Amino acid sequence: MTQSEPSTHSKMETLIALCKRRGFIFASSEIYGGYNGFFDYGPLGVELRNNIKTVWWRDMVQRRDDVVGLDSSIIMHPNIWKASGHVDGFSDPMVDCKESKLRYRADQLFASEVYLDDSFAGYVVTLEGADNSERKKLAKKIRNLKGNKQAALDENKLETSSIEFTELSEEQRKKSLGPDANELGTLTEPREFKLMFETKVGPLADESAVAYLRPETAQGIFANYKNIVDTGRVKIPFGIAQIGKAFRNEITPRNFIFRSREFEQMEIEYFIAPDADWQSLHREWLDTCIDWLVSIGIPRDGISEDIHPKDKLAFYSQATTDLMFDFPHGKQELWGIACRSDYDLTQHQTHSGKSMEIFDESSKQKYVPHVIEPSLGVDRTLLAVLTAAYDEDEIPNDKGTAEKRTVLRFSPKIAPYKAAVFPLVKNKPELVERAQSIYKQLQKRWNVFYDASGAIGRRYRRQDEIGTPFGITIDFETLEKDGSVTLRDRDSTEQKRLSLEELIHYLEEQIKG
Amino acid sequence: MTQSEPSTHSKMETLIALCKRRGFIFASSEIYGGYNGFFDYGPLGVELRNNIKTVWWRDMVQRRDDVVGLDSSIIMHPNIWKASGHVDGFSDPMVDCKESKLRYRADQLFASEVYLDDSFAGYVVTLEGADNSERKKLAKKIRNLKGNKQAALDENKLETSSIEFTELSEEQRKKSLGPDANELGTLTEPREFKLMFETKVGPLADESAVAYLRPETAQGIFANYKNIVDTGRVKIPFGIAQIGKAFRNEITPRNFIFRSREFEQMEIEYFIAPDADWQSLHREWLDTCIDWLVSIGIPRDGISEDIHPKDKLAFYSQATTDLMFDFPHGKQELWGIACRSDYDLTQHQTHSGKSMEIFDESSKQKYVPHVIEPSLGVDRTLLAVLTAAYDEDEIPNDKGTAEKRTVLRFSPKIAPYKAAVFPLVKNKPELVERAQSIYKQLQKRWNVFYDASGAIGRRYRRQDEIGTPFGITIDFETLEKDGSVTLRDRDSTEQKRLSLEELIHYLEEQIKG
Repeated sequence: MTQSEPSTHSKMETLIALCKRRGFIFASSEIYGGYNGFFDYGPLGVELRNNIKTVWWRDMVQRRDDVVGLDSSIIMHPNIWKASGHVDGFSDPMVDCKESKLRYRADQLFASEVYLDDSFAGYVVTLEGADNSERKKLAKKIRNLKGNKQAALDENKLETSSIEFTELSEEQRKKSLGPDANELGTLTEPREFKLMFETKVGPLADESAVAYLRPETAQGIFANYKNIVDTGRVKIPFGIAQIGKAFRNEITPRNFIFRSREFEQMEIEYFIAPDADWQSLHREWLDTCIDWLVSIGIPRDGISEDIHPKDKLAFYSQATTDLMFDFPHGKQELWGIACRSDYDLTQHQTHSGKSMEIFDESSKQKYVPHVIEPSLGVDRTLLAVLTAAYDEDEIPNDKGTAEKRTVLRFSPKIAPYKAAVFPLVKNKPELVERAQSIYKQLQKRWNVFYDASGAIGRRYRRQDEIGTPFGITIDFETLEKDGSVTLRDRDSTEQKRLSLEELIHYLEEQIKG
Repeated sequence: MTQSEPSTHSKMETLIALCKRRGFIFASSEIYGGYNGFFDYGPLGVELRNNIKTVWWRDMVQRRDDVVGLDSSIIMHPNIWKASGHVDGFSDPMVDCKESKLRYRADQLFASEVYLDDSFAGYVVTLEGADNSERKKLAKKIRNLKGNKQAALDENKLETSSIEFTELSEEQRKKSLGPDANELGTLTEPREFKLMFETKVGPLADESAVAYLRPETAQGIFANYKNIVDTGRVKIPFGIAQIGKAFRNEITPRNFIFRSREFEQMEIEYFIAPDADWQSLHREWLDTCIDWLVSIGIPRDGISEDIHPKDKLAFYSQATTDLMFDFPHGKQELWGIACRSDYDLTQHQTHSGKSMEIFDESSKQKYVPHVIEPSLGVDRTLLAVLTAAYDEDEIPNDKGTAEKRTVLRFSPKIAPYKAAVFPLVKNKPELVERAQSIYKQLQKRWNVFYDASGAIGRRYRRQDEIGTPFGITIDFETLEKDGSVTLRDRDSTEQKRLSLEELIHYLEEQIKG
């Protein structure tokens, strides 16, 4: 087996390159040099994205009897964000480097001790996820500053000591070298940076006009809870689900679409009785969420649970567990499932003066319900799907020689194209006509692709790379014998002949989910 | 036939009330007193909205071979809006009232002449669509100011004279009484008011951070055109389609969801050769758009064409025709289909320094393509759909007496619920079980509703009011005889018995479109 030349790219870089090359995801405003923290979804990306959203909505709203949908506006009354605590509290600690003029999120910076000839010489500060070579490079800068190029650097201390930057005292900061600095003590004390994007609504440009782009869709749900209870015939327990854009002015957007400034959320607020067994409902939601991820092709063993320790929870919160996924840049949060008590509704009750109580028919009690909140990002889900689907293997080319293949093993449920239709050759009018007729028939039901150009093996591979699960080839046998076509499976590359009726039935079974 | 008490509501008010009562559309942030120009879509509204978007996408992108999709970010590089002309030119003329502190769009204000005892006494200024009683009320204020309560008011002059406010001279403005004023001359000269919402991106809060919420989705298409041409194997003529939110800081949002500050667009940029027969392509798109509206239930005779006169077009524009619809508040623009030449791409070519030329394989020429732009609002489409679907008739109630019925005659393609399943009675466990089993089976394919409470006639009517096209009743015959169910048609109220297999086939045919 010939190994292709060793890749110098990380998996994330490989994904980013594929996403651009095949029209999944582009940097926003690329012709103007890009715009940090924003992304555009191209022809294939928008289909994948829509399929993820549609399947989530179908499974979480339409197929459940206890969840209804909502689509609230992105810009809402500013008092909503006062009630929710976002106006006062939604910020990240930010650090400036006085020398390089760069800015960092303080909670992403870590300091390591530099020991030279066994005596303490200062700290090097690096970004979360930095490797030893970066720390070493900075430590050598300190050695130069100390004027002793021969001093022995204690690499063990450098590797193992790791202090959160936010924990450093002023004295310690003075002895620290920033990630992009050449002098010690250029990093400022962390200060709070507001993450909500501000704008002004209405013709007056004064303070009364200030409004915010929502930093989460959840508050739109709480703000509409009363209207839905009053008009929707809902009974406790019930959920309200919403899919929509949200915006956060991240100091350091990074890791491709994992942390961007504009993103999309799929959130549910699931309202329960105050005396309900929230622990088992929480566990139920965790299992529902895991099952759903598995159902769209995320491998079960790539998902783990991160239980937030009690002392890190907000005072009103009973529990939060994050479903973590092995992203290319590490194990990171994909889906947060939080038990938020009656905090949000009570806040809105206080600030709006409107009662958020519901009458529970079964217990004949009136109360403000508690809530369980499963909160998932569309973009993170898409990145998880891409990560899980990406594969390289070797298959024989048209000449029978093994060749490296890039394949996206998307579940047929969410694949951008469900199938591609190929006439074996393009210079045989009857063949092309038959292929077109089958293509048009399939196109009425699914998003399918038609490709007549190039060797058939190359056409298969082009579809493999964008994750089309099925290739359908119309050949001379189709015309001359029984009308059957060849169905080629993306993953196994196996081929079988099917009648048109069998084909449609097979596709239906594979795609519906 | 007993007539119900005459409605004092206009059709728009009736629709707004129904939308709120049944959970289609709520005023945004209602618990905080609402937020002018923003709306939230409730459980039924979000389904209707999603169905409209999905059907549009399917028909305009997935079922066409010459259109691909895109989902670009709402916040883009600010240079895009410089290139497009929006930063400098996208504004409305605004007028302040120095007395009432209210603001108006100058182009929505009209002045009428007040004559008292046959001599000119000033102008009254009213908003577009004001009726005579408003003008008369204002004219009487002028009569009072003049100190002659007995003077004869020339009502004919008042009714027939109508001067655009923007045409008034300073002298004339001094003699004008504003819509909410008590003194003459309190309205200011019109000045330009920027319609783009501004925000700041990144940790620096200076001028370099200024960014805009997109006021249209179209520029996201132009900004990604090059990436799509480079990666997407597209051939002239081809289109790029996008559905997404856009924002305009309207001075006077009004007419429910017709003109709001946050709205959603469905736009296509269809790129053609510079020497193509754009007139016939323009006509083709007009027909495509009309056919699509008819296919989702908009009556053909409610749609008319408004051809923009040549002298009102922008210098680069070849033609614009608006498809107008008879909204409750009048005949207004629903879908604009514009021929914009190569203006936008050329602007971006100039501002970005990147070539926007494409190589046309068929003519072997290189050029910047021209464009035809069909631009449609999701919210306006939804309002048109509601307007067209709303009906009142009389049908017999459970006792056989004719009763007024409110019905939304949605096309099954876009109806929020496709069907409702009813057990005839709810105290018969086998009946309920069978109804649940049929409900669960249908729910796997469609969004369906289950309702067991109340008389069957009332349950039908509740579904009529939200536009569910089919009612399926499980009765004793279902259990005791052949398993057949009753299918009741919303529009005709006719009922027929079908086997489960026939039912599913029938629904499939009706819903797919």
